[in-house]
Amino acid sequence: MNVTVRGRCRPFRTVTYDAARNAVLLIEQRLLPHQFRVVAMDNFRDTARAIKDMVVRGAGAIGATAAYGLAQGARSFRGSDLAKFRQHIDNVYGVLRAARPTAVDPVNAMNRVCAAMVHGQTAAEQAALALAAAEEFANEDVRHCQEIGRHGARLIRNGMRVLTHCNAGWLAFVDVGSATAPLYAAQAQGKRFHVFCDETRPRCQGATLTAWELAQQKISHQIIADNAAGHLMQRGLVDLIIVGSDRTLGRTGEVANKIGTYTKAVLAQRHGIPFYVAIPLSTIDWQMKSGLGIPIEERDQDEVLGAWGLPLRRTSLASARRPNRLAYNVPDQGAKGISPIYVRVANSNSPALNPGFDVTPGELITGIITPRGIFKPSEIWARRAELGG
Amino acid sequence: MNVTVRGRCRPFRTVTYDAARNAVLLIEQRLLPHQFRVVAMDNFRDTARAIKDMVVRGAGAIGATAAYGLAQGARSFRGSDLAKFRQHIDNVYGVLRAARPTAVDPVNAMNRVCAAMVHGQTAAEQAALALAAAEEFANEDVRHCQEIGRHGARLIRNGMRVLTHCNAGWLAFVDVGSATAPLYAAQAQGKRFHVFCDETRPRCQGATLTAWELAQQKISHQIIADNAAGHLMQRGLVDLIIVGSDRTLGRTGEVANKIGTYTKAVLAQRHGIPFYVAIPLSTIDWQMKSGLGIPIEERDQDEVLGAWGLPLRRTSLASARRPNRLAYNVPDQGAKGISPIYVRVANSNSPALNPGFDVTPGELITGIITPRGIFKPSEIWARRAELGG
Repeated sequence: MNVTVRGRCRPFRTVTYDAARNAVLLIEQRLLPHQFRVVAMDNFRDTARAIKDMVVRGAGAIGATAAYGLAQGARSFRGSDLAKFRQHIDNVYGVLRAARPTAVDPVNAMNRVCAAMVHGQTAAEQAALALAAAEEFANEDVRHCQEIGRHGARLIRNGMRVLTHCNAGWLAFVDVGSATAPLYAAQAQGKRFHVFCDETRPRCQGATLTAWELAQQKISHQIIADNAAGHLMQRGLVDLIIVGSDRTLGRTGEVANKIGTYTKAVLAQRHGIPFYVAIPLSTIDWQMKSGLGIPIEERDQDEVLGAWGLPLRRTSLASARRPNRLAYNVPDQGAKGISPIYVRVANSNSPALNPGFDVTPGELITGIITPRGIFKPSEIWARRAELGG
Repeated sequence: MNVTVRGRCRPFRTVTYDAARNAVLLIEQRLLPHQFRVVAMDNFRDTARAIKDMVVRGAGAIGATAAYGLAQGARSFRGSDLAKFRQHIDNVYGVLRAARPTAVDPVNAMNRVCAAMVHGQTAAEQAALALAAAEEFANEDVRHCQEIGRHGARLIRNGMRVLTHCNAGWLAFVDVGSATAPLYAAQAQGKRFHVFCDETRPRCQGATLTAWELAQQKISHQIIADNAAGHLMQRGLVDLIIVGSDRTLGRTGEVANKIGTYTKAVLAQRHGIPFYVAIPLSTIDWQMKSGLGIPIEERDQDEVLGAWGLPLRRTSLASARRPNRLAYNVPDQGAKGISPIYVRVANSNSPALNPGFDVTPGELITGIITPRGIFKPSEIWARRAELGG
């Protein structure tokens, strides 16, 4: 989607590949929204570290990054010994998988790349096939998000006020995003609407990433405290809610997503506001039988006890230990750029409890927007053939 | 309530008076929870400025501060000319009232002081009566909170998990607090329980003030993101909710309180969790006929776009332009103390919407805990004689 760099609006993807340099190019998401920077991972180990260190995050985005990383590793092989090449590929695969051991997307993406490689006779042929497969994986991710957008845009009418939670935007995918896809598609159709971004404590992905995306895309929006959503609904100021999903149970229609999603769904039901979840097919879990079985990650207390931000007394950029940088630089904030710092907000000797996700039952969900169309949660299981189950 | 200063646990009030020095002593709440400091206001203008600058906040606390400020002004009068004394008092009254022009508590408190003064023959007698009336006002505030605690403590059983929102604690009153009063009373009865403090974005009074109070009082507690409350209720981890109120409509039982209160009440109803509001009688509005009539203050966007906290790279205390300090110093954080700074969390060119309060309908409220007992919202109007209406 669009990013304004040095006053010029340009399209970017979250993850791209520079074939000439054999580098994976990533938007450095840890610096957003304060700095926009594209960083180049010049070898597969750097690419794995970028996944591990959350330079890139989001299911689709880390899947594509791992796919490109595997192709990158294959293309860096020197020699023609196929046995040694296979050994090398196994090593690359293992390093990339270990970068985010619980995530399923990198593994699925790399398996597709490996499946394509078997058709090559030589190491060079296999490396070329790996790159083609990685490109195809990334492009398919984009197409699926565009399909979500095409279906979801029908829900958006002129003048609507749409609430969203966390970031299921293009930064979490290769491009376009899931929950944001209907917004971008509706904008492309010339519709005008307003978006409320829940700031989404404790990590504030709404205030940072979603708000940044919408600002770059010139979509009218306001950030609200998570506490304010109920009041806005009560006063009739919210017409539609669209969120993403980390895991959707194919059997029950339950949706695990960022903490706070469930609360918005309960409020939406009380006020008769349509509540939609936008998902790529890869988030559907066809095995699990109950949302109670979904493990709820308990995250670091420091996320709740403090916040990351820019001090108003601006400090110059600390340049230590960053990945290689490309020439793109900070939009709207002067040449040097600024790094966020952590501040502790809470009382120093109080502990916190920090569940990262919650589970919304299907009964609270008006519809699930997929690349194949919009379905009621209760319809997902019956359509499992169509939805990849 | 208790504060541990230099390793020693001592009782404090939010607002006290030093008769020998003719000074109003206030806990400097803008530095909490990072520093505990009692500051002395040596003349009524400083006292007014402390109200204006939010050194002290909370209905009961600013009422008592204004009452003491008026007595302080009266006692600083030199001479015996009664006409000049009256003129002086009018001036003091006006300065203190102007410190928080929309608040009703300072005016009510000062009117009571003025009513007591008329019985004095000389300026000196009137000044002495003013001080006695101010002391009585402060003591009554404490007694009312203690009564709230006595009634509310019955709701708390051993092992309960209690959720609270924002700070309706002793820092908002002269002592004890409203929503916290049942907790402190139950603790005094030897009951053991656990408290979840909503951090209460955007100003985080839960993470800062309530958590600090509970830590000082050695009550088991955890801070949670406002987003987490729904998940905890869904998993059966919340047994009781107690919040405060900024305004309670006597005719309808509707409660205006900190933004996010309404959301907790909606969630509580879905999960069958008792939802109580603790109020001093002064917050009851006997005139207004509908919660829709309550003006919802729209506060500064910067509250949502950022946060106040301590940078982990600790800076020494900037000493500029602070009120006089007494000898009490920082507990638990070394001798120097630390000042919080503002950081901007959100995307720089995104606006925010920041409603400060919301309105919870009586149907969602299990009971209203008053100094006169616990009543259903629908019973308040019928009992208006008893409740000061």
